[in-house]
Amino acid sequence: MPDLPFDAADPRLAAAAWSRLVEPGDPAAGALVAHLGPVDALGWLCSAARVGTTARGGRPWEQAVSRWLPRLPGLDVRRELDTLDRLGGTLVLPGEEHWPAGLDDLPVPPFVLWVRGDPAALHGRSAAVVGARAATTYGQRVAADIGLGLAEAGVAVVSGGAYGIDAAAHRGALAGEGVTVAVLAGGVDRLYPAGNAALLESVLASGAVAAEVPPGCAPSRSRFLARNRLIAAMTGATVVVEAAWRSGALSTAARAAEVGRPVAAVPGPVTSMASAGCHRLLREGAVCVTDAAEVRELLAPAGEDLPAEPAVQPGLLDDLDPVAARVLDALPVRGAAPVASVARTAGLDPAQVRAALGHLELAGRAERHGSSWRRPRVRA
Amino acid sequence: MPDLPFDAADPRLAAAAWSRLVEPGDPAAGALVAHLGPVDALGWLCSAARVGTTARGGRPWEQAVSRWLPRLPGLDVRRELDTLDRLGGTLVLPGEEHWPAGLDDLPVPPFVLWVRGDPAALHGRSAAVVGARAATTYGQRVAADIGLGLAEAGVAVVSGGAYGIDAAAHRGALAGEGVTVAVLAGGVDRLYPAGNAALLESVLASGAVAAEVPPGCAPSRSRFLARNRLIAAMTGATVVVEAAWRSGALSTAARAAEVGRPVAAVPGPVTSMASAGCHRLLREGAVCVTDAAEVRELLAPAGEDLPAEPAVQPGLLDDLDPVAARVLDALPVRGAAPVASVARTAGLDPAQVRAALGHLELAGRAERHGSSWRRPRVRA
Repeated sequence: MPDLPFDAADPRLAAAAWSRLVEPGDPAAGALVAHLGPVDALGWLCSAARVGTTARGGRPWEQAVSRWLPRLPGLDVRRELDTLDRLGGTLVLPGEEHWPAGLDDLPVPPFVLWVRGDPAALHGRSAAVVGARAATTYGQRVAADIGLGLAEAGVAVVSGGAYGIDAAAHRGALAGEGVTVAVLAGGVDRLYPAGNAALLESVLASGAVAAEVPPGCAPSRSRFLARNRLIAAMTGATVVVEAAWRSGALSTAARAAEVGRPVAAVPGPVTSMASAGCHRLLREGAVCVTDAAEVRELLAPAGEDLPAEPAVQPGLLDDLDPVAARVLDALPVRGAAPVASVARTAGLDPAQVRAALGHLELAGRAERHGSSWRRPRVRA
Repeated sequence: MPDLPFDAADPRLAAAAWSRLVEPGDPAAGALVAHLGPVDALGWLCSAARVGTTARGGRPWEQAVSRWLPRLPGLDVRRELDTLDRLGGTLVLPGEEHWPAGLDDLPVPPFVLWVRGDPAALHGRSAAVVGARAATTYGQRVAADIGLGLAEAGVAVVSGGAYGIDAAAHRGALAGEGVTVAVLAGGVDRLYPAGNAALLESVLASGAVAAEVPPGCAPSRSRFLARNRLIAAMTGATVVVEAAWRSGALSTAARAAEVGRPVAAVPGPVTSMASAGCHRLLREGAVCVTDAAEVRELLAPAGEDLPAEPAVQPGLLDDLDPVAARVLDALPVRGAAPVASVARTAGLDPAQVRAALGHLELAGRAERHGSSWRRPRVRA
């Protein structure tokens, strides 16, 4: 392979080269590399370039090659790897220790991950918490609460580093002193958006910032959409906190569903357009979640980690059998009543009423006064 | 039947008598009356009373009879019917024109309905809109909006006449000049709760107020629960607008599910305990609804009345094929770029890029400047 200035027989360099040559999610490149491996696939491409492809609009492979060739001249992935090195980053390859195994469920997994921070943050129990940039105070509060709760439970919070919900989720996880991961649409050398640069520095200090495109690549709309599939696949569940009727966060949810991950949505006021996309997801079958415990339930094997019912006072009649409940209900609010009167009011046999009153008396829920019965006086 | 002061061979009087004799939902009475009809069932009970039941705690029928007998002495249902007459009301019997057919799906349907207002309001297309008494401003607003929207679409709004969500739903339907029905737990002579008396007068003027217990009967907790099953069964769907984690409105939802009616819940802020019961329902499979159109969708045969998607501006790239979208995305935000540069940025074959740019130019989405291309300037 004399065309390339780097050692294209090195699987790391070849895999990195593919991440530079083609756009994320390119199905033909994915199939070629999956079939031949990155080294032989790159060799095949260089041969094809030497032979030349002149047939236009012809066979799919010719189309694919002519799509990839514009980036072949001058390709030298050592530059991008140098940049990563200078940033203290790590290139993570499929199958390596820190490779998120969930990515292999994608139709076209990334060729590599370019990672800053601790690559160990990429695998382990995690949930995606995503949503609109145009978030409300409510949405940001809930995203931060969920991020915090997940972090405290040892669940990594994965998001996209964007303004609004993403940032709130990362911040919540940082507040919980947990692990959080931002997956970027552009290169990890450029902490995008600039207004979140300080936040993303904190994210990579406590967890990781990762991308499938090399340093130097700008984020673009199609790369944002491709990035969303990584967030969806590398986590155990995707939670959308706020999203308008059309929102990029819904694409993350769709990708999660495609790879069989649970999709959850946080409800909000129906009067808020910022929750319209969440309600749309709920109508389409997403799980309704209201806190971190309910998100964890989606990650846990059955029976583990089930959230407790909120502690509430039992209602007055909650723990009574139906007959006792009716009898108690039939006792006058003020004063006392004889059994016959209670039976008439309750529509019950007087013998049943007598038996029930006996039980209620033992439970301190009814008091006898001569031949009549009354509710016990409430004691302060 | 010399025991009774009224003509117990009259099916109307006999059915009314059963509604006085036993508590709503009494399964033995329901089975007896379903089997023998109200007249013969009443005759059977009078015979049993004459013979006397001494066996206590014995066979189920003996238990049932001793439950019913306390109310037999002095039973004269003509009094209750006189009261109904004075109020301009109507007794509606099973199978009659205005009988809500859905009630027959109940395990124990009511023996009669005591109705004030227009009994025609009881049948026809309807939805239950229910919820907490302790409602928030948000919940009341949404309930009123849904009530209004249903009324305007010719759907009767059925609720329980209580404070909070029920009242807001009735009020919304009245504002929409539609039909609304309040089903009470006590007799229709007493418009309960007293604070809603004026509202309930408006309800019966535009629709109906109905109960299965006769005039004179007080509402009690067990009658509220029994009443909820009527609301659930006589309507095409039940919508819970706001409900705490434990709330009577959830019992209406449970009864609706039992008789095969769709159950829907309106989401709200997860920070509001007033919506916790709704979110619980959503987690248990209720349909998420945000407006009247989505409620109507639950009532309509498939294909009818489907709500339109909210009108939104299509996104910049929404209507483009993926290649054109990538090309447009790759055009620089400022200035112009030659095809080769656009192809490199987009990761596409230059021939594809040229073809896509031609289409984009025709659509006014790209402009040619010499051999370069740019985004069209936005015109005011």
